[in-house]
Amino acid sequence: MPQFRQDVTTREWVIIATERAKRPDQFKSKDPKKEPPEHNPDCPFCTGNESKTPPPSFLIGDEADWKVRVIPNKFAAVTPDGEPERVKKGLFRSMHGVGVAEVIVEGKKHNMTIGHNMSDDDVENILLAYQQRSLVLSRDHRLELVTLFRNHGSKAGASLEHPHSQLIATPVVPLLLRTKLEVAQSFYDDVGSCVFCDLMNEEKQAAERMVLETEHFAVFEPFASHSPFETWIMPKRHQAGFSAIKPEEIKDLARVLNVTLGKIYNLLGDPDYNYMIHSAPLDETYVDFYHWHIQILPRLTTAAGFELGSGMFIDVTLPEDAAKALRDIS
Amino acid sequence: MPQFRQDVTTREWVIIATERAKRPDQFKSKDPKKEPPEHNPDCPFCTGNESKTPPPSFLIGDEADWKVRVIPNKFAAVTPDGEPERVKKGLFRSMHGVGVAEVIVEGKKHNMTIGHNMSDDDVENILLAYQQRSLVLSRDHRLELVTLFRNHGSKAGASLEHPHSQLIATPVVPLLLRTKLEVAQSFYDDVGSCVFCDLMNEEKQAAERMVLETEHFAVFEPFASHSPFETWIMPKRHQAGFSAIKPEEIKDLARVLNVTLGKIYNLLGDPDYNYMIHSAPLDETYVDFYHWHIQILPRLTTAAGFELGSGMFIDVTLPEDAAKALRDIS
Repeated sequence: MPQFRQDVTTREWVIIATERAKRPDQFKSKDPKKEPPEHNPDCPFCTGNESKTPPPSFLIGDEADWKVRVIPNKFAAVTPDGEPERVKKGLFRSMHGVGVAEVIVEGKKHNMTIGHNMSDDDVENILLAYQQRSLVLSRDHRLELVTLFRNHGSKAGASLEHPHSQLIATPVVPLLLRTKLEVAQSFYDDVGSCVFCDLMNEEKQAAERMVLETEHFAVFEPFASHSPFETWIMPKRHQAGFSAIKPEEIKDLARVLNVTLGKIYNLLGDPDYNYMIHSAPLDETYVDFYHWHIQILPRLTTAAGFELGSGMFIDVTLPEDAAKALRDIS
Repeated sequence: MPQFRQDVTTREWVIIATERAKRPDQFKSKDPKKEPPEHNPDCPFCTGNESKTPPPSFLIGDEADWKVRVIPNKFAAVTPDGEPERVKKGLFRSMHGVGVAEVIVEGKKHNMTIGHNMSDDDVENILLAYQQRSLVLSRDHRLELVTLFRNHGSKAGASLEHPHSQLIATPVVPLLLRTKLEVAQSFYDDVGSCVFCDLMNEEKQAAERMVLETEHFAVFEPFASHSPFETWIMPKRHQAGFSAIKPEEIKDLARVLNVTLGKIYNLLGDPDYNYMIHSAPLDETYVDFYHWHIQILPRLTTAAGFELGSGMFIDVTLPEDAAKALRDIS
């Protein structure tokens, strides 16, 4: 029977439509991506082409022999110059498009990617770059939030093949996060604990949606998954902002992210996906009520008029079944 | 320069990224859809195949010679049976998946579609079916909301080619609409008027985002468009629920919808799109603070990690330019 389920962290309802349920192998890409070459002379992120992109804002290694290279996005949606001045004309409210958009080039090789053929050490370097840039940008008084994300494959909005993540720092807290903060803050006011900590503990007890657990992280399919194989990675230690992550947690997260994306890669045949780090606003890195986490969204279905009109998602896979399939695959 | 703009009806911020701006012809589909046949013997919605679908819940015409045929969705995400009983287990909140999912088959012919080759009278019949089903379903005490929408093309989530719209009625008001209702209600409390009425009047005055205006409707590109060529159709008479529409308004809307989708068809080369009717919850059809409207979203870009992570959309077209292009094309 179909079921509505509520995401208690947003108060969103989703529909779990079991009548349309598909097995994991029915999602498996029929059209596997071609294995890219190790080096593509036309790729602006490959070695030898460093001069085609702006100078890096951060490097792991040095410019001659880098491991991770963070560069300003040449096609940025925001500009680093100026102040976020507001303009109000009646009901038309706007603001100068100040912000920082950067690309985190994840490695030299065109064909090495997380969850496929990268080492845990390689992934650790990427996460260290995320943290470093978050810390530096948090000192810019104009910025309120750093959104870190990865687009893998064209259905996930990736336009370049070379493995990379991105960050966009904005002078405003968007509605989605504001909603999460409000929900989490009222939960904290009412109950005295963090809704994410409580939810993670309940997921661990229920066990049926757990994918894996390490010393520092829990990985599970959320009870109210928006779409098939939505996966959350959550730190066990309460922390609101990603930038507060400790070195031993980064090391563990590198392995967890590599293993989790590897399971998704193997089970679903290298699907297009996005992952997003949901972190607190920069000024709220240490608040008691919010809790950063990574959301992985394989792009296996298309949001249509109902989702766009109601904001309510229809998931055609039971999260319990997705978790079992992910647990069972290596 | 890039700009942040706020949608005052949701308090969402969008980024208008003019640095990446594209001209309308750059969005034009390079791969135009094949003109479908007038009749497809394999199509479950074509004449002669009526027995392959469930009996209609509503017909314009009669079963032998119908004009619009409303049928239960065979692959429904919700079930019409039972009560929306709630289950609470700690933080896991769920509800029996009660609801109504129907398909509005828009005409007999496989190749006749709104905005392309349908008459205004044909479109009027579709709208009459929308209204009729909304009115009937509003008497079902289990239901809170009817979402009416149309998916056109595979990128918009359409799986069948035969022109059709859909409705899904749910026993819960989703978060997106709840947010809109709260924003509109506080605006009403503060200002004493409907935020949508005020916004429409300001758009009419500003003129630069207007696409067309008739006796009963205003069509414009919203100031804070989420994506290129997002278009709103709004009734001039204040009404919260779509089902309260009057016969003369339906007649006018049929023409407005046909002309507007025709402009989009011609300008962008039959793009995939969704339209959604944003209507008040069934119990709030006559409230003073909300105002139904149609949102048309051509699917020209892909929501990627930033949009999914922040909920903030990046629009690569100035709504003012989109409106001018739509005004200029016939």
